Amino acid sequence: MATAGKVIKCRAAVAWEPNKPLVIEEIEVAPPEANEVRIKIVATSVCHTDLYHLLESMPKEGFPTVLGHEAAGIVESVGPGVTEYQPGDKVIPLFISQCRDCRFCKSPKTNQCEKAWRAVYPSNVMAPPESRLSCKGKKLLQFVGTSTFSEYTVVNEMAVAKIDPAAPLDKVGLIGCAICTGYGAAVNTAKVEPDSTCAVFGLGAVGLAAVMGCKNAGAKRIIAVDTNPDKFEKAKVFGATEFVNPKDHDKPISQVLSEMTGGGVDFSMECVGNVEVMRSALESCVHGWGVSVIVGWTSLYDVSTRPLQLIAGRKWTGSAFGGFKGRDGVPPMVKAYLDKKLKVDEFITHNMTLDQINDAIELMKHGKCIRTMLNISPQ
Amino acid sequence: MATAGKVIKCRAAVAWEPNKPLVIEEIEVAPPEANEVRIKIVATSVCHTDLYHLLESMPKEGFPTVLGHEAAGIVESVGPGVTEYQPGDKVIPLFISQCRDCRFCKSPKTNQCEKAWRAVYPSNVMAPPESRLSCKGKKLLQFVGTSTFSEYTVVNEMAVAKIDPAAPLDKVGLIGCAICTGYGAAVNTAKVEPDSTCAVFGLGAVGLAAVMGCKNAGAKRIIAVDTNPDKFEKAKVFGATEFVNPKDHDKPISQVLSEMTGGGVDFSMECVGNVEVMRSALESCVHGWGVSVIVGWTSLYDVSTRPLQLIAGRKWTGSAFGGFKGRDGVPPMVKAYLDKKLKVDEFITHNMTLDQINDAIELMKHGKCIRTMLNISPQ
Repeated sequence: MATAGKVIKCRAAVAWEPNKPLVIEEIEVAPPEANEVRIKIVATSVCHTDLYHLLESMPKEGFPTVLGHEAAGIVESVGPGVTEYQPGDKVIPLFISQCRDCRFCKSPKTNQCEKAWRAVYPSNVMAPPESRLSCKGKKLLQFVGTSTFSEYTVVNEMAVAKIDPAAPLDKVGLIGCAICTGYGAAVNTAKVEPDSTCAVFGLGAVGLAAVMGCKNAGAKRIIAVDTNPDKFEKAKVFGATEFVNPKDHDKPISQVLSEMTGGGVDFSMECVGNVEVMRSALESCVHGWGVSVIVGWTSLYDVSTRPLQLIAGRKWTGSAFGGFKGRDGVPPMVKAYLDKKLKVDEFITHNMTLDQINDAIELMKHGKCIRTMLNISPQ
Repeated sequence: MATAGKVIKCRAAVAWEPNKPLVIEEIEVAPPEANEVRIKIVATSVCHTDLYHLLESMPKEGFPTVLGHEAAGIVESVGPGVTEYQPGDKVIPLFISQCRDCRFCKSPKTNQCEKAWRAVYPSNVMAPPESRLSCKGKKLLQFVGTSTFSEYTVVNEMAVAKIDPAAPLDKVGLIGCAICTGYGAAVNTAKVEPDSTCAVFGLGAVGLAAVMGCKNAGAKRIIAVDTNPDKFEKAKVFGATEFVNPKDHDKPISQVLSEMTGGGVDFSMECVGNVEVMRSALESCVHGWGVSVIVGWTSLYDVSTRPLQLIAGRKWTGSAFGGFKGRDGVPPMVKAYLDKKLKVDEFITHNMTLDQINDAIELMKHGKCIRTMLNISPQ
């Protein structure tokens, strides 16, 4: 590898400041240091969490940065101490690391590894303190430890999943965020049961993946809820059996679902990131055993309910990345796709290049896409 | 039985209107109708939920009523169709029925039977539409379907647990509310694990029972939290290992507990009925797997948190009567007491008569008792 050990100059979409278009710049990507892996990004998609940081949360200290965290690529070189990955390996970078050593990694109950960027979670910066990316002499923060809107990035080995060499990298990057997040919320977090009744709020990529999770778990009824009726056709592809548009009803959607199901659904998943929808999703569950999972990401507002909703036996929880421990959980998901047990291609509604990234962001802002795949480098 | 089939005139403490002292009156207790059981109350204690109705919630349509729901007595007579109970049986009335027939009773996941007074739950009246109690020609609502502040009451057979004939009725009534509620919140709802770290917020009878549940489940650390340090001695009797008084700290109690435990407790139980404490109890849990159970009863305010608290893997739930299905679950709890595996006597700090009920209420209002047992009739 001619580039190993050297600084790579390459192109990336830089977010210099909040709420501004990204700028395609030549950036410098330093060589990987101890326990780090430099990855050539083959394809990356735009996720709502990128937009959340850029357009909603907008923490000043979180910029300049390179966004992007849903991607697949090829290992270019590795730093000292890395033994699990080699140049040429196909990989998916992980926005939640799996160190395999902390008490969270050792527990079967959670994927909340306590290493890497989560250590700075509370600050809203959503990036680790260090970064190998820079531009015009300025450090570029590495958004959620990945920064995939770039031809190259450097990721800690704890945050890399090695995948099947047969995997098409212009597809499987979706498993690095949306698909695991939604699918896992259903199968790992809610633990959807056969013959149950489910409701999925929000039919973006995460919600559609949750629908697929409910179907694969054997749910009997999967009620898809969205204010955009155009999304229902797509939801049916993933297994939705019914559609409810809150705009079609005068009463609270929790009441509508309660009436449709004789008391409420067994499992609900909020895949929007809106605290009012989170409340509706909880209150749409049947008392006694209903489980509601918060999947959509927001830290701007409180979410509320009446205590009796919980005293009556509902369970309210949530998950990030669907509860998957990335290094262990992502490769089997890629395998399931290759074995045709998991849909991936169906999420991709648009293909673009890195130069078109602001167009891809506009599509997502206006709900005009499920996922836009940005093809960065040849495989 | 000379009284069977006849109206019984007896004494009861009547709550004519909210926020007024109870009045000892002669009331009329009609004979039990189909599937009903008339019970001579031997002893009843005062629970905070009685005060909640009388002094906090105060729904106009919820009066006049006879309060009281934590009691033990003897079957006086039974209505047509009752085969499980006979005159002379020792029983504990249940504020959550167990019909054994609805989908909730048939599920192992919940005790939320859908029959009886819960059907009118949402109205805040906390009583079924019918009552066999009257006074001066006025129907007295039967608070939570029990009304035990009376020498006699009539309860649906779905809401009666037959207990061991050896049980001392001036003690075991506590199993009819506080003990099951707190103990079950730990063992049934939170499912406290051996060697875990727990926090119990509020050291009234329910909180102390939760402490006992944590201990019997094998918890290693049981942190008792209360603003009244006098309660800690009692909490130690039930198994508390540490005490935290929020008044001793300038920072949020969730931060104090997080620092004490290296990240938060595994299980927390809110036994106060205060929405701010409920939030603290949740946020005191460790991310990844912490489970927080709302036990304290209030329907007056919303409870809130940041969504990230749940997305990070905490679970928020609650239970009523500790998840015990009353007819099946109460008799073994009484047996456990008789076998000295469950503490009951230690909750009783005062003994009084029905005439002193307003004194008992004052004691509870001012946190001067754990439980006051009102001895109504000889056993």
